[in-house]
Amino acid sequence: MIVRDYNEAKNTERKVSAEGWDSVRLLLKGDNMGFSFHITTIHAGAELHLHYKNHFESVYCISGTGSIEDCTTGEKHEIRPGVMYALNLNDKHILRGETEMVMACCFNPPVTGKEVHREDGSYALVD
Amino acid sequence: MIVRDYNEAKNTERKVSAEGWDSVRLLLKGDNMGFSFHITTIHAGAELHLHYKNHFESVYCISGTGSIEDCTTGEKHEIRPGVMYALNLNDKHILRGETEMVMACCFNPPVTGKEVHREDGSYALVD
Repeated sequence: MIVRDYNEAKNTERKVSAEGWDSVRLLLKGDNMGFSFHITTIHAGAELHLHYKNHFESVYCISGTGSIEDCTTGEKHEIRPGVMYALNLNDKHILRGETEMVMACCFNPPVTGKEVHREDGSYALVD
Repeated sequence: MIVRDYNEAKNTERKVSAEGWDSVRLLLKGDNMGFSFHITTIHAGAELHLHYKNHFESVYCISGTGSIEDCTTGEKHEIRPGVMYALNLNDKHILRGETEMVMACCFNPPVTGKEVHREDGSYALVD
């Protein structure tokens, strides 16, 4: 059994930061769960252009408000606590934080912890 | 892109209930994400004996307090907001709700939505 505390992990190298967001990776590929699990904070006012070409991701809003725009269909969806979106088509999207949003995120395949967002908004696959 | 709202889904057949807990399945096997994602509420005072022999599960505490006991090692871990546990060894465990606890849960392989807890605390695999 693995037990980890977000409030401790956020002060370690499990936390990665970039412009507009930070993410604390509570489970990574090396944990052999078959998915990774992250608590990600989107900063108020952030606009993130993302496209996980190589990963499926689900995102559940714990707190805060914002929106997600599907770049393929043009549809916008409001995000508030309780809303989940899942990028089952590796959907290219724009995530906007109205207030700071705290999100519970699952990735398949699991993130190794060494990825950074590339210019095209994706994560590379890492072995 | 799939978008679902816990506050709507909890009033549909996505919600399953049993003694001491209920669970709203926001992603199931049929969504083809490779994992399932559930918001599970453990009732105050509940004591659940669980053993997912066929699934890996991670559980992140959004709200509430309680504990998890590892039946193999006898160790007890406090659960409070921000604590995550992952049953990477299909660990047999006892989950206790001190107050009502709301948990974000990921299962691999994904749950189909038709499972019920069996007497031994596990979920059967369903095809």
